[in-house]
Amino acid sequence: MADRPVKELNWKTPLEEAHKPSLNKIAEIGICGIMDPISPGTPPGSDVATLALLGYDALKVYSGRGALEAIGSGIDILPGDVCFRCNFATVDENFVVLDRRAGRISNEDAAKLAESLQKIKLKKPSKVDFLFRSTLQHRAVLVLRGAKLSTAVSDADPGKVGEKVQQVKPLNNSSEAKLTSQIVNELLHEFYKTLKNHPLNKERVKRGLPQANIVLFRGAGTIPQIQPLTKTYGVKAACVSAAPLVGGVCKVAGMNLIRVKGATGLPQTNYLGKAEAAVRALDGYDFVLLHVKAPDVASHDGNVKLKIRVIEEIDKMVGYLLDNVDMDSTYLAVTADHTTSLLTGEHEGDPVPIAIVGPYVRRDDVKEFSERSCAKGGLNRIRGLDLMPILMNLLGKIKKFGA
Amino acid sequence: MADRPVKELNWKTPLEEAHKPSLNKIAEIGICGIMDPISPGTPPGSDVATLALLGYDALKVYSGRGALEAIGSGIDILPGDVCFRCNFATVDENFVVLDRRAGRISNEDAAKLAESLQKIKLKKPSKVDFLFRSTLQHRAVLVLRGAKLSTAVSDADPGKVGEKVQQVKPLNNSSEAKLTSQIVNELLHEFYKTLKNHPLNKERVKRGLPQANIVLFRGAGTIPQIQPLTKTYGVKAACVSAAPLVGGVCKVAGMNLIRVKGATGLPQTNYLGKAEAAVRALDGYDFVLLHVKAPDVASHDGNVKLKIRVIEEIDKMVGYLLDNVDMDSTYLAVTADHTTSLLTGEHEGDPVPIAIVGPYVRRDDVKEFSERSCAKGGLNRIRGLDLMPILMNLLGKIKKFGA
Repeated sequence: MADRPVKELNWKTPLEEAHKPSLNKIAEIGICGIMDPISPGTPPGSDVATLALLGYDALKVYSGRGALEAIGSGIDILPGDVCFRCNFATVDENFVVLDRRAGRISNEDAAKLAESLQKIKLKKPSKVDFLFRSTLQHRAVLVLRGAKLSTAVSDADPGKVGEKVQQVKPLNNSSEAKLTSQIVNELLHEFYKTLKNHPLNKERVKRGLPQANIVLFRGAGTIPQIQPLTKTYGVKAACVSAAPLVGGVCKVAGMNLIRVKGATGLPQTNYLGKAEAAVRALDGYDFVLLHVKAPDVASHDGNVKLKIRVIEEIDKMVGYLLDNVDMDSTYLAVTADHTTSLLTGEHEGDPVPIAIVGPYVRRDDVKEFSERSCAKGGLNRIRGLDLMPILMNLLGKIKKFGA
Repeated sequence: MADRPVKELNWKTPLEEAHKPSLNKIAEIGICGIMDPISPGTPPGSDVATLALLGYDALKVYSGRGALEAIGSGIDILPGDVCFRCNFATVDENFVVLDRRAGRISNEDAAKLAESLQKIKLKKPSKVDFLFRSTLQHRAVLVLRGAKLSTAVSDADPGKVGEKVQQVKPLNNSSEAKLTSQIVNELLHEFYKTLKNHPLNKERVKRGLPQANIVLFRGAGTIPQIQPLTKTYGVKAACVSAAPLVGGVCKVAGMNLIRVKGATGLPQTNYLGKAEAAVRALDGYDFVLLHVKAPDVASHDGNVKLKIRVIEEIDKMVGYLLDNVDMDSTYLAVTADHTTSLLTGEHEGDPVPIAIVGPYVRRDDVKEFSERSCAKGGLNRIRGLDLMPILMNLLGKIKKFGA
């Protein structure tokens, strides 16, 4: 949701430009501030940002995106599993990348292709099994299991259009790293063989769409070893999010995932349904995280109008929360997990606005929820990992340090 | 002194409600901010908060309250001594706790009982001696000395009214932990035997007061290994405080304790006498800590009016300091060691206001000393352990880092 000033908005940010009476209400009756998800200037991925917002020191506990996304998409990850985040992509016959997202392939097409790929049998005789599943659009996850494996392997994904898919290499001399890279390289080629002849890809060409003829692997990781929120704060916690990565982080943090019909993780989503689910969840849970991916997607696509519209949809969700939650006994915090710039299309390291409302906060005189106005608020400047202690302190869930 | 907004004060804090011209003067001519004693959201005990305000990283050096309180009450603690913080309490015949503070027993009654308990001889043949001393109201300290002992023992204090006093257990398999728990259990029962038949307790019953028929032990600790302020900053430092715990921390930090007649650590105390002592101390010391426990006591008791009155007494002390200290050559910082909520009666993790006045501070435009107004000040948001370096820097007492 957070952004930098945008020239075509006369140097306002999309959040400043949007009509957002409910977000402003939160700012007005609450305490505001700005927050560095990790540290000033560090652009965070959604995974480490969510870890930080849940109170974890991402610099210490982060162990790669693959496992988190896999967990969020419903795969049970075991300690020892090595997971990769994957993209369906388009390459030419020389393995040069033409489109890193295969034209942001639809969830349906990706799922069909993933189903075919899962049927492939590994040739190399090893005890290793693989699980491959598509998640959101072009995104997918690969899980290797069954032998001693290593995350010390390089990426197949060159990261840029116009460059060649990389051979995956072991990053140390261990037999585990060698075995892992062998298997990934084999899968890379077997997946390619299956995809390039897949009927769905021929159909995509007819529809004028780029073929999804390769899967790019990157970010080998394992499940992070973190203490669940239940144990740290003694709270029952739930998450309403359609983004597998955010869901995965929440699950690892011991939260229950609540699925909402029509929630997509895209700008076209069931905004009100998610807000309703969050309100219902408050009956049984002490802490509910309600996440909307849409403004990040709009920024990645450089779509100013869409971003503003999406923020206005979020404002309506917040209005629903204010109308339907007992605000005499509930604390509500509104923030973003990172700044995503419409101009660069990338996550940026600028701080995000934060506002907390509830019975005993020290209300300040900020009246607008935006990147700039919140910088004048009573919270001043905090870090992502401060947020959870601040909220849990308001709920009386933090043990005194010392006596 | 710091608090959350209070409903019966029309959502002002006691500090906002109080008449406090001198505190406001400090804010007006000084630089203000808010301060997290430990970190955002962490409710600190007075011991770790005072360690932090003196510039120590409490997360690293804290080794339990017992030793600090014992030192503050005048007992010389040696390395190797194991100390417990203790409460005089009231139990029924089944050892179920009826009152964890024996009706906040008076200093005088507690001292008489402590004198009798000190006469008990340990039965078990060991080289261990014990020292037992009452400190403030129901609070007391127990020191074990003379053999290899351990802090790895559980508490006797169940922490709650209605629960049974606990058997003290070793928390590891060491012979030191076993010996320590044996001795503490023996003392628990010997103390009980002496107390239940004590003439003073019979007299208390006649006076309609709860008997102080048991001593609850908890928080086994040792003396923290920290570098004194003299060495870190090259300053001669003194402390004016009637709270044994704060005095203990200051002593461990190499400060001299200045006792003031009529200073009690309670709301009824010699406010002006303490301010006078602090002014006199500035003749011989570079740094003087003047501490008033009263607003914390008022908050623990949920007494709004008392808290406001006590803040107004502190304001007069500050007025005396402004009138009697050479403000052209002295820096004066005003703050709280933590937020104590009138509503919850507990220490909370909300930040505290801080204002520093003196010849070369960068004066800001804050005009009121309060939790909310100071959040707009030039110091922004700092941590407890930042304060001492900030002050010592103003005094030119910090060595350059680098060249």
